[in-house]
Amino acid sequence: MAKQEKAALGIDLGGTSIKFGLVAPDGSILQKASLPSLAEDGPEAVINQIKSGIRELLLGSHKIAGIGVGAPGCINAKKGTVENPPNLPGWGKVQLGKILEKEFSKDVYIENDANAAAIGEMVFGAGKELSSFIMITLGTGVGGGIILKRKIYRGESGAAGEIGHVTIDYNGPRCNCGSYGCVEAYIGNGYMTKRVASELGKHSNSKIFEFLDYDISKLSPLVISQAAEAEDEYAMSIIRDCGEKLGAALASLCNLLDVTDIVIGGGVAGFGKLLFEATLDSTKRRVLESLRPQINLFPALLQNEAGIIGASSLVFYNR
Amino acid sequence: MAKQEKAALGIDLGGTSIKFGLVAPDGSILQKASLPSLAEDGPEAVINQIKSGIRELLLGSHKIAGIGVGAPGCINAKKGTVENPPNLPGWGKVQLGKILEKEFSKDVYIENDANAAAIGEMVFGAGKELSSFIMITLGTGVGGGIILKRKIYRGESGAAGEIGHVTIDYNGPRCNCGSYGCVEAYIGNGYMTKRVASELGKHSNSKIFEFLDYDISKLSPLVISQAAEAEDEYAMSIIRDCGEKLGAALASLCNLLDVTDIVIGGGVAGFGKLLFEATLDSTKRRVLESLRPQINLFPALLQNEAGIIGASSLVFYNR
Repeated sequence: MAKQEKAALGIDLGGTSIKFGLVAPDGSILQKASLPSLAEDGPEAVINQIKSGIRELLLGSHKIAGIGVGAPGCINAKKGTVENPPNLPGWGKVQLGKILEKEFSKDVYIENDANAAAIGEMVFGAGKELSSFIMITLGTGVGGGIILKRKIYRGESGAAGEIGHVTIDYNGPRCNCGSYGCVEAYIGNGYMTKRVASELGKHSNSKIFEFLDYDISKLSPLVISQAAEAEDEYAMSIIRDCGEKLGAALASLCNLLDVTDIVIGGGVAGFGKLLFEATLDSTKRRVLESLRPQINLFPALLQNEAGIIGASSLVFYNR
Repeated sequence: MAKQEKAALGIDLGGTSIKFGLVAPDGSILQKASLPSLAEDGPEAVINQIKSGIRELLLGSHKIAGIGVGAPGCINAKKGTVENPPNLPGWGKVQLGKILEKEFSKDVYIENDANAAAIGEMVFGAGKELSSFIMITLGTGVGGGIILKRKIYRGESGAAGEIGHVTIDYNGPRCNCGSYGCVEAYIGNGYMTKRVASELGKHSNSKIFEFLDYDISKLSPLVISQAAEAEDEYAMSIIRDCGEKLGAALASLCNLLDVTDIVIGGGVAGFGKLLFEATLDSTKRRVLESLRPQINLFPALLQNEAGIIGASSLVFYNR
């Protein structure tokens, strides 16, 4: 039992900064650190930053159970490799797991950040009591992780869970991935903001203008959210529309997977009650009747530190 | 080894007829029978027909390894229950597995017919060498079964694989399920035929008219297929459009599940090469770039007797 009480070291590897946390088995953060990624200096520089951060936290004389890393891009969790992470130029394929294992003689677990978020919610958050659930992270992209009977579902090559690239209109707007009408092409931050910017002229009374100080370059999901909270009709309609579209994708997922519990996290989830109600309503209207009564949406519980807590959860999950 | 050489008894339970087959471990049919379902007389009558058919085949003094049943509706494979099968009125929930086990002292395995078709292809057909694949059956409905690492994926309540009710246009035509723009609402037999009937007036030179003897009530996927084979441009465009839409749903599935092998069966699959080419093209254009090179479509190999061979495969699969 002594072993189980050890903390885990969680690392949230991003393009701008790398966040480190010592996380207790109950999910509380014992110690934190953050370093710039130095992404532009290439993989060696980034790896050295990772090593420095780990050393810093290990100085605290904590004995750790292992190291978990949430990383962007294509991860092979079994081999511990990170392949072509977006925002980390020049990486190709890096055997990050082996490198860190060799350096620190600890077990190292690597997952893509969407899967780490799902595992984090399962171990510490909204999915603690759920058998199977779909985790959606709303942000620049729409990320996803699929938990089936308390296991992360990785698919054939480790790339499963690309919920953002489920099409809700085969004839819809072009998505960055090259396809059309992906749900991300409607509710991803950039797409949504762009759409609002183009429509805002038709809503000259919208309170959105006040919240962005009449400077359209300040337009963001936060501003839309603020205006909606001030009961601006147009801002509210944007959020409801987000929910309608997310619900269309979720209904397809529920029908396909026969999974009815859904956890929603990420920045846009800050749209709050209005988004959740619209999403639940749309999902329930669209899903097969036999599944309808079981549909449940939960807000993600890991908020600000979801990255490091999710990464640390990999250690507890894999033990 | 002697045990493994025993045949299995496969039963394809339909609303009109019940088909029975003794199937050897190599998938060849040793003996067949067919009886009317007597669906209108209620579950007891149907169950008696099932028992009669089994007895008829057992008279042949074959020793069997077990009994497999492919049934419509909501099946609990673990409990062997059949719930409210469409086309079999008055069933409620019937413990068909227990009833047959008691009567014949044999192991009985029950799956819904879409899952049985997928397992049949895995055991005897196009999926023999595949680790994970998606099985689609095109017919009145668009059915599906998901095989993950040689296991059928049933979901939380046994209802997984409803590929026909994956939405490809959240704003699209109403589907019988109550939702909008399900792929079934475009390429299910009835929907497709209805659409062609409504459009045909604008294509007065179409060879479809000849193949249906100028009697629009004879319109069917077969007629469309015949006209397309005679190089009728409109009929060909219908089939290409089917492929385009099926591909939109498949790309979503591949992105979500990270599964890239797809087996297509059922009547509409008789649209042949034209449908397969259009579906492959649409799927590849729409799927995430990292998965694109791995996408493979296979025609189902079990054709006329897919029902009984699929049902018998449940016995070999579960042993």
